[in-house]
Amino acid sequence: MQLGVIGLGRMGQIVVNRVVEAGHEVVAFDLSAEAVATAADAGATPAESVADLADRLGDDKRIWLMVPAGEAVDATLEELAPHLDADDVVVDGGNSHFEKSVRRAEETEAAYLDCGTSGGPAGAELGFSLMVGGPQWAYEEMTPVFDAVATGPDGHDRMGPAGSGHYVKMVHNGVEYALMQAYGEGFELLANGRYDLDLESVARTWNNGAVIRSWLLELCEEAFREEGTDLGDVADHVSGGSTGTWTVREALEQEVPVPLIYQSLAERFGSRDEARFSRRLANRLRYGFGRHEVVREE
Amino acid sequence: MQLGVIGLGRMGQIVVNRVVEAGHEVVAFDLSAEAVATAADAGATPAESVADLADRLGDDKRIWLMVPAGEAVDATLEELAPHLDADDVVVDGGNSHFEKSVRRAEETEAAYLDCGTSGGPAGAELGFSLMVGGPQWAYEEMTPVFDAVATGPDGHDRMGPAGSGHYVKMVHNGVEYALMQAYGEGFELLANGRYDLDLESVARTWNNGAVIRSWLLELCEEAFREEGTDLGDVADHVSGGSTGTWTVREALEQEVPVPLIYQSLAERFGSRDEARFSRRLANRLRYGFGRHEVVREE
Amino acid sequence: MQLGVIGLGRMGQIVVNRVVEAGHEVVAFDLSAEAVATAADAGATPAESVADLADRLGDDKRIWLMVPAGEAVDATLEELAPHLDADDVVVDGGNSHFEKSVRRAEETEAAYLDCGTSGGPAGAELGFSLMVGGPQWAYEEMTPVFDAVATGPDGHDRMGPAGSGHYVKMVHNGVEYALMQAYGEGFELLANGRYDLDLESVARTWNNGAVIRSWLLELCEEAFREEGTDLGDVADHVSGGSTGTWTVREALEQEVPVPLIYQSLAERFGSRDEARFSRRLANRLRYGFGRHEVVREE
Amino acid sequence: MQLGVIGLGRMGQIVVNRVVEAGHEVVAFDLSAEAVATAADAGATPAESVADLADRLGDDKRIWLMVPAGEAVDATLEELAPHLDADDVVVDGGNSHFEKSVRRAEETEAAYLDCGTSGGPAGAELGFSLMVGGPQWAYEEMTPVFDAVATGPDGHDRMGPAGSGHYVKMVHNGVEYALMQAYGEGFELLANGRYDLDLESVARTWNNGAVIRSWLLELCEEAFREEGTDLGDVADHVSGGSTGTWTVREALEQEVPVPLIYQSLAERFGSRDEARFSRRLANRLRYGFGRHEVVREE
Repeated sequence: MQLGVIGLGRMGQIVVNRVVEAGHEVVAFDLSAEAVATAADAGATPAESVADLADRLGDDKRIWLMVPAGEAVDATLEELAPHLDADDVVVDGGNSHFEKSVRRAEETEAAYLDCGTSGGPAGAELGFSLMVGGPQWAYEEMTPVFDAVATGPDGHDRMGPAGSGHYVKMVHNGVEYALMQAYGEGFELLANGRYDLDLESVARTWNNGAVIRSWLLELCEEAFREEGTDLGDVADHVSGGSTGTWTVREALEQEVPVPLIYQSLAERFGSRDEARFSRRLANRLRYGFGRHEVVREE
Repeated sequence: MQLGVIGLGRMGQIVVNRVVEAGHEVVAFDLSAEAVATAADAGATPAESVADLADRLGDDKRIWLMVPAGEAVDATLEELAPHLDADDVVVDGGNSHFEKSVRRAEETEAAYLDCGTSGGPAGAELGFSLMVGGPQWAYEEMTPVFDAVATGPDGHDRMGPAGSGHYVKMVHNGVEYALMQAYGEGFELLANGRYDLDLESVARTWNNGAVIRSWLLELCEEAFREEGTDLGDVADHVSGGSTGTWTVREALEQEVPVPLIYQSLAERFGSRDEARFSRRLANRLRYGFGRHEVVREE
Repeated sequence: MQLGVIGLGRMGQIVVNRVVEAGHEVVAFDLSAEAVATAADAGATPAESVADLADRLGDDKRIWLMVPAGEAVDATLEELAPHLDADDVVVDGGNSHFEKSVRRAEETEAAYLDCGTSGGPAGAELGFSLMVGGPQWAYEEMTPVFDAVATGPDGHDRMGPAGSGHYVKMVHNGVEYALMQAYGEGFELLANGRYDLDLESVARTWNNGAVIRSWLLELCEEAFREEGTDLGDVADHVSGGSTGTWTVREALEQEVPVPLIYQSLAERFGSRDEARFSRRLANRLRYGFGRHEVVREE
Repeated sequence: MQLGVIGLGRMGQIVVNRVVEAGHEVVAFDLSAEAVATAADAGATPAESVADLADRLGDDKRIWLMVPAGEAVDATLEELAPHLDADDVVVDGGNSHFEKSVRRAEETEAAYLDCGTSGGPAGAELGFSLMVGGPQWAYEEMTPVFDAVATGPDGHDRMGPAGSGHYVKMVHNGVEYALMQAYGEGFELLANGRYDLDLESVARTWNNGAVIRSWLLELCEEAFREEGTDLGDVADHVSGGSTGTWTVREALEQEVPVPLIYQSLAERFGSRDEARFSRRLANRLRYGFGRHEVVREE
């Protein structure tokens, strides 16, 4: 089949490569001519503009957007709009908020599939996990492409109607924060505990047969191998947090307790503060009631 | 009545003062001659040794220990032992672990009262809250002294048998940690929120009629008045933690969830770390799966 | 001075009473004629409608809204609008979200004061804590009324510009949740711990001189006195939660960690579930990896 | 090589099978004659007693204990003692507390290896993850057996001196609790969220390429397949908790914050309560300050 890909960053190029390698035809566009050239080298037909890409796809267009979540998605959809009708299918493979995907599905003439994508750059070889929301017929139409981009037929599924793909991806990321923090707590205790341990060896031993083995634990193993058992100069500063924040907000809305996911997010926030006000106040209050000496900054 | 006081630190002197002012006779001893002299100035009869103190008290001795929790209590009890019999009463007003108090009650010839004491130096004027464990008759015998040391008759009570006084005090301190952290979180949000607020004014307004008014909130008000609304150079470093640790350990033993008390303690531990290993690992893992740039220490 | 009060529920009546008792003139209106009659009995001049109330106030109107947060506030303001000009002052004493108060302040011709009110029905005698946001001149104009409604001059203050009063009240409530949970954890441990304790006695002893003494702890004491040390048939079901949810959402927005406030809210959510899905899954997973018997519902 | 196995429960039989299949000679004993017969069917030489097993092993005994952690280990070691000397090696493959392993290593004449074993019954086919503490020479001596019992050479390693194997296993289990709770929170939100989802499909899609893929997530997938997407009659009651409790206690000792591990344990405790006292008190306090109706049990 034929697929248009708009947005040729790291992830977009992987989509191009995997779809081309699966024997499909790809028309590719990006605002960067260099990115388009890279896609062309990989076997895609270069397009000069969104309009050009739409023209080259003919009827029954199948288009994959891999542009940054946010305004870029709306801008691209606006540019595409004159070229789309109800037989076309547009996939948003980025990290959009599910409520925006619901709105876009309503506003777009074409069938709209929101597609949560997980696996990161490592998915270049292994393929991704794709969580798809939107009309069943459109999902089925796109199956050959999903088979190519995902790890295989089990690596993608239709979660439900519009927004459900990005909804499930949002929750995936919330869980991801908590898993990272959970492993982190275990290794923090081992790093500060009673034994002088080789944490790469611990991670490798766990990854071979232990209950807690996982891909994230393999990444821990890699981290200790590359940075050393003390993580060298890796700083206590965790960036990101938007999908975790979305998850907690949705859990508040649904009144579902998510203490681990919340705390993982709070740890990120805490890592960005020079000094936590709450603890500075506790320091001072201990003087207030017990005349314990106040610790001062030097 | 007549009371022997052993241990004349800040808290011991307050006990002496309050009991003397209530019209009782006090015999006082401390390893520091200077501390004994201070107590004598306040109207106590100075003793030259534990044995001397015991001699001066005659039969039916009533003795208050205000020595640092731990070995000092055992050492003092050992020294007292030859002078004690079943008609005597010993009060441990320090911050001992309840299991030690149970053991000491069993090993001591005299009646043994474990007395959790709360209120800090401010209690010099207001009196303390006294949570007492041990035999009913001994508690009754000591009532005039408890009336004097406490805020009054409502400021002390017998909680139950040996150990229960220090047990209730232990839990009191666990709650104290959580209250401090709770106020701290509120003020941290206000300090980092949408408005430029005068936190002393906030605390004062709350202390006058709001649901969350309390003595700790009065101490917050004082802290902002004395340190400024940004707490000046007060450091993010909270010392202490032993009674909170005891509380969490006991809650683990009893399988009672105490998430707020635990988290308050964890915040203290976190305040003492240069950098949290768990967050450094999360920082690195985000590169592992998403090629997000690792933040490095400079 | 002269004050119009709109909204004569429990809290509105207290406002009427306290302002009348302070020697001011009150014009009162409510949709319920019965409520208006009650206010009239207390010394207020009854009004037949919002328009009638506005007419009776003449120029430089001073109006206190004590209607339920939400649409009622907007509806009342809309009805008042034709009668207001820039010399008038409207106070919203309810529990509105601060962002709505900012919007209302912009939309209202009159000066608009958002006034967070804490203290509950007990404030009828003691007076309330009032956290006020809005123009300085309007706050000063209303001072005699605030003096009457609050515990006194220290019981109210201007926090800052529009919205800041309800903002500080929102955070107050977040802290309130955490304080309640903190005391709850302490008493839960005592109720399930090693000693058979009289929790009313514990609370009373703490309230007299202990570091954690507070008004909420006095309410704990009252609860144990009235319900018994085991709380009788009081159910594990905590209602409410909107202001706590607002607090956590704002803390997410500001990236401020509030783990205790969050967990207190999560406990409320958890109290409303028949069975927590996360724990049911953990139950089943223990079979998955360890062949531990699955506990089934009967 | 030749290995004695004492303790032939589910895990002990798997050890026998894997070691026999690897071509080694096994002498097996258990208090249950039936268990010994099963091991004999699998190719082991049956022993009639601990002494008989020791006799059959000759010099340089290599013995694997797979008896329940606790008194059974000490009882077995006591029985073995007369037969052991410094050239022998004893492995404790059970879930002992690391401090007991340190003590046993000191008290046992033979070299003592504490061996944390993870992987559960599924390890019968895949092999286990083995975390070993104790003398290097003894670990090397046992390598052929560890190769057979583990998933292979990468599935076992020497962590460090006595106790370190069980120490790392203890922390492994703490992390395990947190991972289970983290997945549980994600699925709880999905089960109560905006979409009607097939959770088996979600888990399968995640397991194929997503960042959070893991063996535990495969067990989630299995659970939803076997119990249904709503988990059927699986109860909200999580048993167990001893290794998690050990982990938190050790983290308290080392002053390392482990909020996720703690909270996972607290959730287990909470799942065993009919009604949480802390929340019952909060329910009542809301009446105390706000006259909100108390929810009563029917």
